[in-house]
Amino acid sequence: MNLRVVLVEPLYQGNVGSVTRAMKNFGFSDLVLVNPCKLEGEARAMSSHARDVLEGAVHVSSLSQAIEDVSIVIGTSGITGTKFDEHIRVPAYTPRELKERLAGVSGNVAVIFGREDHGFTNDELKMCDMITSIPTSDIYPVMNLSHAVTLILYELSSVEAWENPLADAFDIKLLYEHLDELLENIDYPVHKKEKTSLMLKRIFGRACLLPREVQTLRGIIRKIERKLPDE
Amino acid sequence: MNLRVVLVEPLYQGNVGSVTRAMKNFGFSDLVLVNPCKLEGEARAMSSHARDVLEGAVHVSSLSQAIEDVSIVIGTSGITGTKFDEHIRVPAYTPRELKERLAGVSGNVAVIFGREDHGFTNDELKMCDMITSIPTSDIYPVMNLSHAVTLILYELSSVEAWENPLADAFDIKLLYEHLDELLENIDYPVHKKEKTSLMLKRIFGRACLLPREVQTLRGIIRKIERKLPDE
Repeated sequence: MNLRVVLVEPLYQGNVGSVTRAMKNFGFSDLVLVNPCKLEGEARAMSSHARDVLEGAVHVSSLSQAIEDVSIVIGTSGITGTKFDEHIRVPAYTPRELKERLAGVSGNVAVIFGREDHGFTNDELKMCDMITSIPTSDIYPVMNLSHAVTLILYELSSVEAWENPLADAFDIKLLYEHLDELLENIDYPVHKKEKTSLMLKRIFGRACLLPREVQTLRGIIRKIERKLPDE
Repeated sequence: MNLRVVLVEPLYQGNVGSVTRAMKNFGFSDLVLVNPCKLEGEARAMSSHARDVLEGAVHVSSLSQAIEDVSIVIGTSGITGTKFDEHIRVPAYTPRELKERLAGVSGNVAVIFGREDHGFTNDELKMCDMITSIPTSDIYPVMNLSHAVTLILYELSSVEAWENPLADAFDIKLLYEHLDELLENIDYPVHKKEKTSLMLKRIFGRACLLPREVQTLRGIIRKIERKLPDE
């Protein structure tokens, strides 16, 4: 999927710079600006190490130019349907639903963001194939432009999470047996033992132990046992 | 869940303002600032309609003050473990995994964010029960501070059903002290002690211990200690 970010008439250059930074953070670089504000020092400062994205942005004079070669246009809106324009803004997907909906597609996709003060015109909204809306507090739903871009790109980026291989099931079983043995050796009250043994299993179970951690825990138990007096 | 945002020595007032806006967007207001930069016009401008959150922020002079009454401390880091400090930064959860891990708990939880330039010191990282890291592009992984806050709050704002009260921060602290004492008493190798102590903190930290579980664990340790031979 080629994902393009389109900002429609952004008013503040700091926001444009911040948007480019977020884009580069999530591995995107295709930015189209529709009649943007002047982009000078502050835009460059906020873009930080994403200056290449800022300088590579394509400037156009209308939204239709920006999405000419795009298969799916996704509009972002903080407002999810009023009596008057309901058909324009619904259904509004959450960013997560949007991600699920786009799973498996390939081609040119654009996410478009409106002006900081007035969002989109209805004509612009009508150019969208889908609407996405970030679930926010009713008290203050209006997000900063670059924050909204960050969230959408976070969801749509396919960057994989760093994975920790879990401890081997067999080693975990040995750990639990070892713990039971320890409870035995310290004369843990018989009527509490089963309950406590289960509790330990639940605690370590939901901690999703790593291999090295299981070894360390067993090492601790071994040290304890060696220190205990012989029966 | 009472979610607190802690910014450690933020350098740019615009970022602090932006953070308050993101907090209010997602319905949060508990902000603690550790030795922040001066907060003047730019902070207010970026906070926009979240001026109340900015003005309500508590200023403290150390991270330990900021998390005194907190049961679970979550550190955010762009770096997820190097050869040298692996034990400090692992395992690192994605924000989504973090959300799943916190599902169902209630109590005081803090998410802490480091300096824009140098992040956290190792001592600060050691105060964390869990580490979360946002999956970003290898080419430019360093996110803007307020963008990182926005993503974490976005994920945590939809955590469901807070029913299980977390163990009290004070009792958890006693448990860790008790564990350290135990390692001492069993002559755990001195050169491994600090590493192992931190590992235990991470294991129990991410298990989100309930009050009864802390008591049981301490009961086990007491039983072990009673069984150990007198020096």
